[in-house]
Amino acid sequence: MLPYLENIPNAEELLLVHNEIKPYINKTAVLSHPDINAMIGAEVFFKCENFQSIGAFKIRGAASAALALTEEQRKNGLTTHSSGNHAQAVAKIAKELGIAAYIVMPDNAPAIKRKSTEAHGAKIIDCKATTADREATLERVVAETGAYFIHPYNDYNVIAGQASACMELLEQVEALDAVFAPIGGGGLMSGTALALKAFSPNTKAVGTEPKEADDAYRSLKAGYIIENTSTNTIADGLRTTIREKTFTIMSDHLDELFTVSEEEIISAMRIIWEKLKITAEPSCSVPFAALIQQKERFKGQRIGIIITGGNVDLNKLPF
Amino acid sequence: MLPYLENIPNAEELLLVHNEIKPYINKTAVLSHPDINAMIGAEVFFKCENFQSIGAFKIRGAASAALALTEEQRKNGLTTHSSGNHAQAVAKIAKELGIAAYIVMPDNAPAIKRKSTEAHGAKIIDCKATTADREATLERVVAETGAYFIHPYNDYNVIAGQASACMELLEQVEALDAVFAPIGGGGLMSGTALALKAFSPNTKAVGTEPKEADDAYRSLKAGYIIENTSTNTIADGLRTTIREKTFTIMSDHLDELFTVSEEEIISAMRIIWEKLKITAEPSCSVPFAALIQQKERFKGQRIGIIITGGNVDLNKLPF
Repeated sequence: MLPYLENIPNAEELLLVHNEIKPYINKTAVLSHPDINAMIGAEVFFKCENFQSIGAFKIRGAASAALALTEEQRKNGLTTHSSGNHAQAVAKIAKELGIAAYIVMPDNAPAIKRKSTEAHGAKIIDCKATTADREATLERVVAETGAYFIHPYNDYNVIAGQASACMELLEQVEALDAVFAPIGGGGLMSGTALALKAFSPNTKAVGTEPKEADDAYRSLKAGYIIENTSTNTIADGLRTTIREKTFTIMSDHLDELFTVSEEEIISAMRIIWEKLKITAEPSCSVPFAALIQQKERFKGQRIGIIITGGNVDLNKLPF
Repeated sequence: MLPYLENIPNAEELLLVHNEIKPYINKTAVLSHPDINAMIGAEVFFKCENFQSIGAFKIRGAASAALALTEEQRKNGLTTHSSGNHAQAVAKIAKELGIAAYIVMPDNAPAIKRKSTEAHGAKIIDCKATTADREATLERVVAETGAYFIHPYNDYNVIAGQASACMELLEQVEALDAVFAPIGGGGLMSGTALALKAFSPNTKAVGTEPKEADDAYRSLKAGYIIENTSTNTIADGLRTTIREKTFTIMSDHLDELFTVSEEEIISAMRIIWEKLKITAEPSCSVPFAALIQQKERFKGQRIGIIITGGNVDLNKLPF
């Protein structure tokens, strides 16, 4: 069992989580391609979290959070709200621990994510695609079932779990100058930044966002959280808004933050598919799109990019 | 430099080739997925040759053949005829060795393969999609340029190079009961069978073919080569006909050969994309389609499958 983390996780806690969640995750491959290196003028290493069995990194945070619960806390199962990958992660870890999972999901969630969540034996409870209805529905589920709510990102155990992707990458590739990750709610980016500060302080933590859902960019600039008023981006995993824990960590530890257009996202996604021969979600093409945009700045460097997931509806490709 | 192999390669020669071509190839990852294992009732290990920089295993054979040439033999460059991946392989190794490449390609070859071959700096010479015109065009190229012809598969050095994919898989995964590979011209399957007999004699060598291009199945049954009269299969990499060297090796060393329908190929391809999060050509979905078809027979076993390539035109997916 893991400790319940009440503060920003330190190096020792990150190592503990990294170690304890190993039975529940894959140590994913790192891919690179000479054509991509030539195109960027840098050495680019893609950490393929789409190779997790749920097809995304989110299993790391869900496992970390679930393993910090007492038997009493988790006996009635787990619950969360999620448009997709976190839902599958909670469903999967609940199944592994032999407990129930109740997932509150907006009725416009991609079919492939809904199907995969159900395949793990979770019960799906529909809500409208608004923050208010999502939270009301979740409260009702908690009241009715006694399930324990695992937040998708505003949770130090979840953040520590997500950090393990970058920690693995540091084990696999030496001397990285920067690691790029996308920002949705900010869990992965916060974990990535904490991992770098703890274990590779000379490696820059670079956040990336769609221009169409740039709450982190605007919030970090303003010094307080400014929610997205619209999220008209193909990167469906990045439509969420950052919250106080991820805002604080990113305020202190992010070195750069770049935003990219929808055209840049789709173009980067196609290069990833064609060169690396992997299926990657639009969300995880965002960091590579940012690197293409900023390639002059990172020339000659060694860059890590976290490919966050590959759960794409093959009938709805943008190309 | 490698020896020019005039006979079926033995264990020592396979090891020599495996070692010498290492600087020119990637040691590719092996992926597996719990949902696929549950679906088949076996442990299935996918050797991802789509992760070679040219997107396919063919670089192994081309490197092996090119490294067996004297300076004199290769000074005027390399040539071959190929609808795709072997073309890219010859173009790539020629570029690495600093010599010219001339590729004879049928005018109906997929655009993505043509583009990628040109990107390696090769010169493409069009021919009609008939054996006669292809061979006449190649003869003309050899006469005009003095380039050395590397056959796509009917060549012991090429076969020894392709064997290295299976040799790597044996290093990566222990105690395999069978390895499935597709048969086009038979180079990969011949190499795979030779590698298994030499280094893991208890592992079965299982060949697989589309029913729509089942020349190996019919030839091995008859005891002599029977060419395809039509090749109406989506598996464009498997439309070629086996030749005397690959026929002889497969006659002696293949343990099983299964054929699959076009529907089975497309269905298997979709499962590979959705679960493994990789882009795989129709050709390399053939062995997995055969395993799905024969799953009762391989229940509880440990099965290797060679994913031969991922060079798919994303604008022409069958789903």
